[in-house]
Amino acid sequence: MSRLDTFIKRVTAQRDCLNEIARRLAGRREPVLELGLGNGRTYDHLRALFPAEDIYVFDREVAAHPACIPAPDHMLLGDFRETLGGALARIGRRAMLAHGDFGSADLARTAALAEWLGPALDALMAPGGYVVSDQPMAVARWRPVAPPATVEPDRYFIWQVGD
Amino acid sequence: MSRLDTFIKRVTAQRDCLNEIARRLAGRREPVLELGLGNGRTYDHLRALFPAEDIYVFDREVAAHPACIPAPDHMLLGDFRETLGGALARIGRRAMLAHGDFGSADLARTAALAEWLGPALDALMAPGGYVVSDQPMAVARWRPVAPPATVEPDRYFIWQVGD
Repeated sequence: MSRLDTFIKRVTAQRDCLNEIARRLAGRREPVLELGLGNGRTYDHLRALFPAEDIYVFDREVAAHPACIPAPDHMLLGDFRETLGGALARIGRRAMLAHGDFGSADLARTAALAEWLGPALDALMAPGGYVVSDQPMAVARWRPVAPPATVEPDRYFIWQVGD
Repeated sequence: MSRLDTFIKRVTAQRDCLNEIARRLAGRREPVLELGLGNGRTYDHLRALFPAEDIYVFDREVAAHPACIPAPDHMLLGDFRETLGGALARIGRRAMLAHGDFGSADLARTAALAEWLGPALDALMAPGGYVVSDQPMAVARWRPVAPPATVEPDRYFIWQVGD
């Protein structure tokens, strides 16, 4: 399987997982967190799924498609390790969804980030909220949720945050 | 439809078109041209489809996944407008396939590049070869080929080069 094949599976899994969680979250009115703006494609998808909610995006820089750039007060610029720590004070509410697609070619760095990110994200999450990611994370109060049937095992991960 | 949805359709269309053309080119032994290395995903797919062929990649820089970087003698570094002109002299043979996924947020720039690129690519193509792209191009001796049924209209384009 080529990296193009793998990539198609990953972005399709991402889309299918986010669509499923949007259905589960229907009616809830809490913020959504997106780790990494990148090209802005996933941010664009999130605002289509959650048109009335506050979506906060964390990234080192704004390098997205011009049509997919969050308002400055919804963009938390800087290294995740710095911006996540102060995010709750800035946002003022816990989130019902956090999404992070942060795997890179550097497997050791990705694993270290995932290990750090779980607890850091957990502090920002509302009870019953969901975390969706391309990387496995382990947080005691998160319960794994099976992705939709279209998603291959271990291609994408969902957890529901406990009370 | 979000930009994530559109993107998934585009990369899936790209993969399906390249797979189809690889079937049509089975048995031919001429070079393959890839315009844009980017992350190296499509290059990786092309080398899976054409493991025995010379694949030449054109890009301004090498910023790909470390496992997907062509050998230096198969990488033509610089602006397309400069490197394509000298490519035939460097490669020494005409190509059986050229692929270009070069659309950007700047629609006017993309259209201008497509207009310039058609004739420039044509000069590098062997009779009966194929050009595959995300952008429409118009070259007199190219005959449009219908993409596979999985591809929506105008999502991706294929032409066969005439004699």
